[in-house]
Amino acid sequence: MLEKLFNPKTLAVVGASNKPGKIGFSIMQNLLHYNVHRKLFPVNIDCPQILGLKAYPKVSDLPLKELDLVIIAIPKPFVIDVLKDCAKKKTKFAVIISAGFKEAGDLHSEQELVQIARKTKIRIVGPNTLGIFDNFNKLDCLFLSITAQKRPKLGNVSLISQSGTVGAILIEQFEKNKVGLNKFVSYGNACDVNECDLLEYLNKDKHTKIIAFYVEEIIDGKRFIKILRKQKKPIVALKAGRSKKGSQSVQSHTGNLAGDSSVYSGIFKQFNILNAENVTDLVNFSKSQNIKSIKNTTIITNGGGYGILLSDHFEQYNIPILELAEKTKSALKKVMPFGVGTKNPIDIMGDADSNRYIQAIELTKKETDTYIIVLLGQTTTITKEGVIELANYLKRLNKNIVFISTEDRYTEILENDFLVFEFPEELARAISVRVKR
Amino acid sequence: MLEKLFNPKTLAVVGASNKPGKIGFSIMQNLLHYNVHRKLFPVNIDCPQILGLKAYPKVSDLPLKELDLVIIAIPKPFVIDVLKDCAKKKTKFAVIISAGFKEAGDLHSEQELVQIARKTKIRIVGPNTLGIFDNFNKLDCLFLSITAQKRPKLGNVSLISQSGTVGAILIEQFEKNKVGLNKFVSYGNACDVNECDLLEYLNKDKHTKIIAFYVEEIIDGKRFIKILRKQKKPIVALKAGRSKKGSQSVQSHTGNLAGDSSVYSGIFKQFNILNAENVTDLVNFSKSQNIKSIKNTTIITNGGGYGILLSDHFEQYNIPILELAEKTKSALKKVMPFGVGTKNPIDIMGDADSNRYIQAIELTKKETDTYIIVLLGQTTTITKEGVIELANYLKRLNKNIVFISTEDRYTEILENDFLVFEFPEELARAISVRVKR
Repeated sequence: MLEKLFNPKTLAVVGASNKPGKIGFSIMQNLLHYNVHRKLFPVNIDCPQILGLKAYPKVSDLPLKELDLVIIAIPKPFVIDVLKDCAKKKTKFAVIISAGFKEAGDLHSEQELVQIARKTKIRIVGPNTLGIFDNFNKLDCLFLSITAQKRPKLGNVSLISQSGTVGAILIEQFEKNKVGLNKFVSYGNACDVNECDLLEYLNKDKHTKIIAFYVEEIIDGKRFIKILRKQKKPIVALKAGRSKKGSQSVQSHTGNLAGDSSVYSGIFKQFNILNAENVTDLVNFSKSQNIKSIKNTTIITNGGGYGILLSDHFEQYNIPILELAEKTKSALKKVMPFGVGTKNPIDIMGDADSNRYIQAIELTKKETDTYIIVLLGQTTTITKEGVIELANYLKRLNKNIVFISTEDRYTEILENDFLVFEFPEELARAISVRVKR
Repeated sequence: MLEKLFNPKTLAVVGASNKPGKIGFSIMQNLLHYNVHRKLFPVNIDCPQILGLKAYPKVSDLPLKELDLVIIAIPKPFVIDVLKDCAKKKTKFAVIISAGFKEAGDLHSEQELVQIARKTKIRIVGPNTLGIFDNFNKLDCLFLSITAQKRPKLGNVSLISQSGTVGAILIEQFEKNKVGLNKFVSYGNACDVNECDLLEYLNKDKHTKIIAFYVEEIIDGKRFIKILRKQKKPIVALKAGRSKKGSQSVQSHTGNLAGDSSVYSGIFKQFNILNAENVTDLVNFSKSQNIKSIKNTTIITNGGGYGILLSDHFEQYNIPILELAEKTKSALKKVMPFGVGTKNPIDIMGDADSNRYIQAIELTKKETDTYIIVLLGQTTTITKEGVIELANYLKRLNKNIVFISTEDRYTEILENDFLVFEFPEELARAISVRVKR
């Protein structure tokens, strides 16, 4: 039901601009960045041409009878008239970037938007939204210039965020942490399309496997629970406003589910929603959903200290460390240089090259389900060629592979194919949600 | 008593090398990087000249009667003979980089080192150490090339680490997070100089104000407690090996304090040692020690979501958020644009420029002790010039200033003068240790 929102054939930008820095310029630039076959119409009352495209004064002037999507990025006082004008072209969806409605205390104008939506059947995303980004259909109408902020690689996580700024930061974090993104919706004030509509849609969307969710308040509690009952895909959620002060900051209004933290954590628990406690959790839990469930782990480290820290954090998060068979330990002792620790964590020492990693894996792979490979790049024996060789070897191995990598140049090589973290606790916490209990 | 270790007048490197990639090359390169007046002698049995300096076959061949410090970076089988040779020149300190002793299971050789130390009065750091770095005296004999890894800026935190690799990572993290470092010692197997000697010395060192400490096992428990009783400087400690598996990974030996986690946390509590739970804590707690103690906080944010998240995390960590006086709220309402949230957190909205930040601060500064300033650089109204203007204004303000900054280009401007964090929870946890209770 939201297909045309994410993949419109016809699309207009009201407030499109030729001036860099303007919202309507960024959005046009982002949309034009991808070479996708769809009809894009800039709308600007003063300017006949925008970024090389013919522009129209009003949506109702467009040379077509129906419009799939309109992006509205103009000052608030003009939004309602524009929306009414859109109805003349049987517009299906409107993404209203413009702010200054409910979130600024103007409930009346927001109510007017809702009434128009009901009457004209235009479905509204927003107002007060950063926009939407579909990485699969290559639709990018974010109010975040693509030249200033890179987008995440394509993947199977779809992200919905009530807050625009938190959404922008999550987009950035997904990109930095190589979390593959499918769709992103900043749903803002949710005057019409809300988190329930989006969850329902994403649950059916075949390109979405994991749903990440930043939420301050649930608009329709009853429907939310109904949807969760039918939910089949993993959801990772960060609920903000759990504290007294925090929930005061969330503007609550009639019909919303109580902001009480225990209510939310109860619901999350009941429906197996992963409860992210902070922004980093939301990113890392999403990221780790892409590995198979973990039965046991073997840690191979070139730094003794990181082996100890990992053991500590694995115990803290109840992640099982495999007890290696006696004959495996003997085999390791035979092959490895003097001083290598043959208990798990296997400390292959600071002078280990990629070959020693591979040897240790070869000898333990019959027993092990998940490898935690610590690659402290500060040592001098690890080379780029060695890291590539190790990565190629591991790609052929049918195991969960999770890296700690401390050198950017090696992280860059590894993170395209494997989960990579920088710190022991971060790794432990992230993968703990994949342990088979 | 350790002055000459950190600031030797005469210094020899055994194993000095002309070959890039060799440990003895990196150490020489690091030492030569600083233009400090001290006599540096490369020692190499095969080579008469190292990096432009005359080299000597043995320490006993050096043209002097006494030697302050020798760095030993040669294969283990030769270490003992070299150490004996050092005694002929009344060497005061030896830093033994070479590994393969106790940590690899060779207790006998390590015992021999200890016996020589006792007999010759040479004080040994190591073996199995990354070396030492004095940022004040500009002595850098780390087995980490200065060309591959930048050093932290000069500051008042001194760091001691039992583990070399964890030490290397902490050096890198201090640099990345702009934690000012004074001295760094990787003390390795601690066959002679141990954490007690170092703590005692740093407690008296006038350039050290904060001590950061990564430890796996305390060598001499009784003395440790005695030292803590007299300790006046804040200590931030990360104790590894707290779990069952983790403590198994720590090679324990007679006379050590038990690895039991509750024993350590009890001692840490009793002596006001800040208990870092992970690497990030160790860095962030050290960093936040440089602000005055916190009585109350005012949050000024250009992203509503981050205001809510901060409120949540401030409650989680018991950080007080100031209740603004009614007249302050009215004054804010008068000056700020429609829609600005005048409760604390003060949400000055996504279109805020630096001026709006300054206005909000001006109106609240009578009541506020600590400002948390959220600068989400994803918005278009924040400019580089604005950030500089804001920073200059804040430098004149006599308050604790803690930033959240999400844009690297702005973080770079801010972090020279202020505490800067990337995530709400990270900030809250870091400053929670500075709240006046």
